[in-house]
Amino acid sequence: MSLTTIRDVRVILTAPAGIDLAVVKVETGEPELYGLGCATFTQRYEAVATAVREYLRPLLVGRRVDAIEDTWHLMMNSGYWRNGPVLNNAVSGVDEALWDIKGKQAGMPVYELWGGCCRPAATLYTHAEGATSEEVEEHARALMADGYRYIRCQLGIYGGHMGGAQQQLSTPKAALEGAYYDPGQYTRATLSMFERLRSLLGYEAELLHDVHERLTPAEAIRFACDLEPYRLFFLEDPLAPEDSAWLANLRMHTHTPLAMGELITNPAEWMGLIQGRLIDYLRVHVSQIGGVSPARKLAALCEAYGIRTAWHGPGDLSPVGAAAQLHLDVSCHNFGIQETAQFTEAEREVFPGTPLIENGYMYPNDRPGLGIDIDERAAARYPCRRREHKWLQARRPDGSAARP
Amino acid sequence: MSLTTIRDVRVILTAPAGIDLAVVKVETGEPELYGLGCATFTQRYEAVATAVREYLRPLLVGRRVDAIEDTWHLMMNSGYWRNGPVLNNAVSGVDEALWDIKGKQAGMPVYELWGGCCRPAATLYTHAEGATSEEVEEHARALMADGYRYIRCQLGIYGGHMGGAQQQLSTPKAALEGAYYDPGQYTRATLSMFERLRSLLGYEAELLHDVHERLTPAEAIRFACDLEPYRLFFLEDPLAPEDSAWLANLRMHTHTPLAMGELITNPAEWMGLIQGRLIDYLRVHVSQIGGVSPARKLAALCEAYGIRTAWHGPGDLSPVGAAAQLHLDVSCHNFGIQETAQFTEAEREVFPGTPLIENGYMYPNDRPGLGIDIDERAAARYPCRRREHKWLQARRPDGSAARP
Amino acid sequence: MSLTTIRDVRVILTAPAGIDLAVVKVETGEPELYGLGCATFTQRYEAVATAVREYLRPLLVGRRVDAIEDTWHLMMNSGYWRNGPVLNNAVSGVDEALWDIKGKQAGMPVYELWGGCCRPAATLYTHAEGATSEEVEEHARALMADGYRYIRCQLGIYGGHMGGAQQQLSTPKAALEGAYYDPGQYTRATLSMFERLRSLLGYEAELLHDVHERLTPAEAIRFACDLEPYRLFFLEDPLAPEDSAWLANLRMHTHTPLAMGELITNPAEWMGLIQGRLIDYLRVHVSQIGGVSPARKLAALCEAYGIRTAWHGPGDLSPVGAAAQLHLDVSCHNFGIQETAQFTEAEREVFPGTPLIENGYMYPNDRPGLGIDIDERAAARYPCRRREHKWLQARRPDGSAARP
Amino acid sequence: MSLTTIRDVRVILTAPAGIDLAVVKVETGEPELYGLGCATFTQRYEAVATAVREYLRPLLVGRRVDAIEDTWHLMMNSGYWRNGPVLNNAVSGVDEALWDIKGKQAGMPVYELWGGCCRPAATLYTHAEGATSEEVEEHARALMADGYRYIRCQLGIYGGHMGGAQQQLSTPKAALEGAYYDPGQYTRATLSMFERLRSLLGYEAELLHDVHERLTPAEAIRFACDLEPYRLFFLEDPLAPEDSAWLANLRMHTHTPLAMGELITNPAEWMGLIQGRLIDYLRVHVSQIGGVSPARKLAALCEAYGIRTAWHGPGDLSPVGAAAQLHLDVSCHNFGIQETAQFTEAEREVFPGTPLIENGYMYPNDRPGLGIDIDERAAARYPCRRREHKWLQARRPDGSAARP
Repeated sequence: MSLTTIRDVRVILTAPAGIDLAVVKVETGEPELYGLGCATFTQRYEAVATAVREYLRPLLVGRRVDAIEDTWHLMMNSGYWRNGPVLNNAVSGVDEALWDIKGKQAGMPVYELWGGCCRPAATLYTHAEGATSEEVEEHARALMADGYRYIRCQLGIYGGHMGGAQQQLSTPKAALEGAYYDPGQYTRATLSMFERLRSLLGYEAELLHDVHERLTPAEAIRFACDLEPYRLFFLEDPLAPEDSAWLANLRMHTHTPLAMGELITNPAEWMGLIQGRLIDYLRVHVSQIGGVSPARKLAALCEAYGIRTAWHGPGDLSPVGAAAQLHLDVSCHNFGIQETAQFTEAEREVFPGTPLIENGYMYPNDRPGLGIDIDERAAARYPCRRREHKWLQARRPDGSAARP
Repeated sequence: MSLTTIRDVRVILTAPAGIDLAVVKVETGEPELYGLGCATFTQRYEAVATAVREYLRPLLVGRRVDAIEDTWHLMMNSGYWRNGPVLNNAVSGVDEALWDIKGKQAGMPVYELWGGCCRPAATLYTHAEGATSEEVEEHARALMADGYRYIRCQLGIYGGHMGGAQQQLSTPKAALEGAYYDPGQYTRATLSMFERLRSLLGYEAELLHDVHERLTPAEAIRFACDLEPYRLFFLEDPLAPEDSAWLANLRMHTHTPLAMGELITNPAEWMGLIQGRLIDYLRVHVSQIGGVSPARKLAALCEAYGIRTAWHGPGDLSPVGAAAQLHLDVSCHNFGIQETAQFTEAEREVFPGTPLIENGYMYPNDRPGLGIDIDERAAARYPCRRREHKWLQARRPDGSAARP
Repeated sequence: MSLTTIRDVRVILTAPAGIDLAVVKVETGEPELYGLGCATFTQRYEAVATAVREYLRPLLVGRRVDAIEDTWHLMMNSGYWRNGPVLNNAVSGVDEALWDIKGKQAGMPVYELWGGCCRPAATLYTHAEGATSEEVEEHARALMADGYRYIRCQLGIYGGHMGGAQQQLSTPKAALEGAYYDPGQYTRATLSMFERLRSLLGYEAELLHDVHERLTPAEAIRFACDLEPYRLFFLEDPLAPEDSAWLANLRMHTHTPLAMGELITNPAEWMGLIQGRLIDYLRVHVSQIGGVSPARKLAALCEAYGIRTAWHGPGDLSPVGAAAQLHLDVSCHNFGIQETAQFTEAEREVFPGTPLIENGYMYPNDRPGLGIDIDERAAARYPCRRREHKWLQARRPDGSAARP
Repeated sequence: MSLTTIRDVRVILTAPAGIDLAVVKVETGEPELYGLGCATFTQRYEAVATAVREYLRPLLVGRRVDAIEDTWHLMMNSGYWRNGPVLNNAVSGVDEALWDIKGKQAGMPVYELWGGCCRPAATLYTHAEGATSEEVEEHARALMADGYRYIRCQLGIYGGHMGGAQQQLSTPKAALEGAYYDPGQYTRATLSMFERLRSLLGYEAELLHDVHERLTPAEAIRFACDLEPYRLFFLEDPLAPEDSAWLANLRMHTHTPLAMGELITNPAEWMGLIQGRLIDYLRVHVSQIGGVSPARKLAALCEAYGIRTAWHGPGDLSPVGAAAQLHLDVSCHNFGIQETAQFTEAEREVFPGTPLIENGYMYPNDRPGLGIDIDERAAARYPCRRREHKWLQARRPDGSAARP
């Protein structure tokens, strides 16, 4: 086994659900033995692909497949400057593929290598959205009918475009184009939405909400307090990572449970959050920190501090990444909850073995490795194209750029 | 007196109330002079008995009975690795027995050696339980009629099995067997129970509640806040010892008084709680920390920080242990309250001198030593047998193992 | 694979090197498939054996072998009171045996399941001892000739019996028997020993020293400062775990690198050491914290804080435990150094596959699982017998009991 | 002026000094008006180029050139995941080019827009290197003869390859290939080098040294203390950013001045260093944090804490970057010192206006903008090619991967 070496490292780009995905395929000297890993940074996928092709491939070809931990450090440090979303995703693609290979060599699902299942499936939360409170309620009811018990409820897109009619924002003349939102309108409308949801749905359903770092610290603190009566399962990203030390202030004022971390790409961003017990759930996007190897250590760090995992998992993750984090979910004792998108038929066609969702749970399969494959011919039928993400050009009413 | 030496150290196992108890009997060179101490770790009593028989007995036989403090250090350190529930209970059995002997030698109750009584009796709290709020209310009223003014109220068994009908839990397929509980159902039902109790019983009775460490930090903090209107005397074990640093967050949000510590077996677990004034009552199980010698010092430490004692005292304690902690209760100035079980007739038969309970108080007697004896022939009629404790195999709805 | 269940859990006691060892053998429904784990608490081995036989065996028989992490939590919590050296060793025996089985099922050494090798072998340190500085020097030179570059140097036994002639200690009349030591004599003699070693051996050899927690905080701080010129690789256990918060004071005064932790049996004992960066190397005894599953998480916690591992590894560890920690050593990136004893021929006879030591390195083999077996017939030829550990009855010159 | 828009954003790759450089050229609607910015991440330049071409160019073309601060936020946030060396360099290229344009529009050097010169030139430090102490001394004397008063002295390459003869390292069998170094040999040799330098050169020359994060915290602390007698101007990167919280320990033991930060790419990495006053000089690589706009704010933050700047400036920076940081150096009051490489003739040919160095000072010119241009035809004569950086594959003697 130790003689098996890396023959090639390739990037496969595909967009079966209309989101640009990047998957790394590590091929070995054994014809049938290869691994897949998620390297999806959908907004910058070409830069990740370049990093894999131009830098990781030459570094890795000919090396042994078995020394995953050593290889991870080699990849991470060989550029001298390290971390960041582009390089971490590139590293993640290889890291997860090596674990996939390891599982196949062992003839076991990867979760078995990580100590076996702590639970048979991962509890999911998913998104109910709508332009009005009524639409959100309707969507939530439909999800509950499908068996979901944890539902993230959002009006419009992260505070912007909150109704059928364009919001009336008072902006100065000559303000630049952008995705405008008004923090006051957003918070008032959201509170009103939760008032409706709780009065009509009761308190048995677990409701969540994502601020998407669109508030100032002062706004976020007040909002988290105002949300207390609605008993959220957690409030997501009340602040940007750059402002996370403000969470100590927020924590003094409200016990609304907090989840953060999807934007984290550097250990210096998580140490304070965890040490200070400033959050209840860590929501890191696994490929954005460099794959499952660092994610497993991060989960252990969180466990020591009584913090649970809630890995970032909407559609900007390949099904390979979804499978990888599902292996984390079932094998880490301090798993909390898993965000999920609904996989499309096209995704299941391109990625055979995409995890099954049933009654609000995601189930791993028992195939060796990560249990997911890629049909490269099908993948090619859904080419990536650089998409505009206008919502990322967020602006506040005075015309200034905001975090998205 | 100093010439009196230890002739034998024996373990007596008995279960007069259906709970496996372990008591240590230290016999001396003087035929009539012996002492009793509690060494009860009911779930692992055989391991404690082995530790006493195989290791403490050979260490102690022939040593002088008077140097209790020195002997305690010798016992604690002679295995190199120390603390932990098995070894501490073994040490406790000897430690309490040596105090019992010391009192008999002095012709005084042990509390006299500790400075005499600060109060003539210990105020008790006891348990009202039921499958429904109505049953709990009824049970509480019966206890109040018996003179109890402090009553711990619980629905079902620590969050599980909350009604006559089996709870409906949504668990994933293939979830393992276990004692399942749902934190949401548990907290909602308990709040509703207290709503009923307070509206029907008023606020004169002091009510308590035990979370039994079954909540995550975020859940516990919210629950402690929600309980505020019901003005608990204290909330017990809102968190596991492993999560106790989270109490700093909890304390920011609510003044619900807190009691913790029955699971503590290591000084490192109590130092932070006390130094940080994170609790109001320390609830250590005396034999689990090594007996009355360390418990007296711990009470002194608590007094320095304005924290009161509430030694753990349900049925998984022998009447010898109950007597020993009663001597602590009446002689420590910063005693708060004493948990108690109702002693059965069989227990009183096996343990003559078992403390009397009257009108919600437990009274020490004035016999020399701990004032309690054992009838070994009676004890033998109630043999121990390793019992299953299924409730200790706690699981959360997703199928994962939980703290019990 | 998931259908494989536990058929039996047995304890094997053996003392091939004159030290009482305990090993757990987990047998499965597949005749040839079993695993071994270290459960050695040499001073209390019978209590560990009772815990395994009476409590873990009935809990585990019939359960699946694959869910290691879940089983660990079940074992740890099923006694309600948890941690401590007796129960943790019992849990460790099973935990390591399940990893051994997992590796065999995968057809891989366990280190491969943990991410593969970060280094081909573990750098070792071993012990040079003698009654005089000259003897220690001679011993150190012999070890250096064998290829060792890291050598722990001790005069006598942890500060006691420091020369051929019995030390002259001034003790009060009627002082009890014990292993007396004088902190002043000990520290002066040790400094003088290092003066000789450095002047004759130079500074290329890395020298270490173990205080064995035999000093008060004030003595330890001064001693650590006095040792600075001799540039120890690390100073071991300058304080007892109960005094570890004093390390903050020590750290203010000296940069002598510190290693601690062999006595730790409870997470509350390590959190402060690590969070506060009070040590440079964590020296936990793997079976004393419950096996390799918690040790892997602890290593990840240390890595986040820039602390390296130096697992406790002298002779009071079975070769199975030595193999298990070698798998940790080669697979954890933040491994620092490994303490080792020299394995005897009898140990290699009883434990085929005992790791090879060459030129100061310990090499893992590439057999599936932990790569070590037990010859039960050979084991039976070296029966355990409860040994006296007089050195554990440490006393200071005034006659008082001390930590050992 | 506000009508001027971005017509194109191009990346120019060139390696006139044998180091792969990336420069961004922002072209405007006015034919002669363009700007240059440094985007050099030499080890991953293709990934930066992809990020500029595929993502920043489409985002920026058609936008106004004047709103530099707004554009910086737009670039930084438009990928959602942000920071990291690849994206920050891409942003830096545009950011610095926009400042170049702004200066040209104003008809002023950029330092004038930033408040004018605080000093006419930047004090430099440069590198004396050699395989032996004698060679380093000779090199230092040559630099002193050229007018340098601040000289960084290094033996070999960051602790590895320390003499003409290959170091003798004891590594285990089967250790992987890599750039091995031995911390003990490195620190002893470096101390010996400084002993020689100080005894022969005296104390008037300011000497510096770069650990290049190659030591563990314990090693670094001792080394910084050992260096005290040699009175370094500063000690560079004693620890990796991941270990920077350890600087608090180091600061307790020595007043050796510290400089850190060339690897920082995320604000979370600098906040603790600055708030805690853990360093004396901040050495951030300007393009690695996103250009001169964030660097100016970072300088202001440092000024608030009494910390000075020492921007990272060896050869892995384009002359455009060197010019940009020179504008920072002369205009920021809390500038400390500037690291420099010696520009080659080829660099001056490709980059007309490359700053002049004289007598240990670097002088800005008074041309509008950054005062530097690029000759694209000359640039093309020095094509980039992906170079191997074997020194980045650092390994410690036991064979494990280390930070470079």
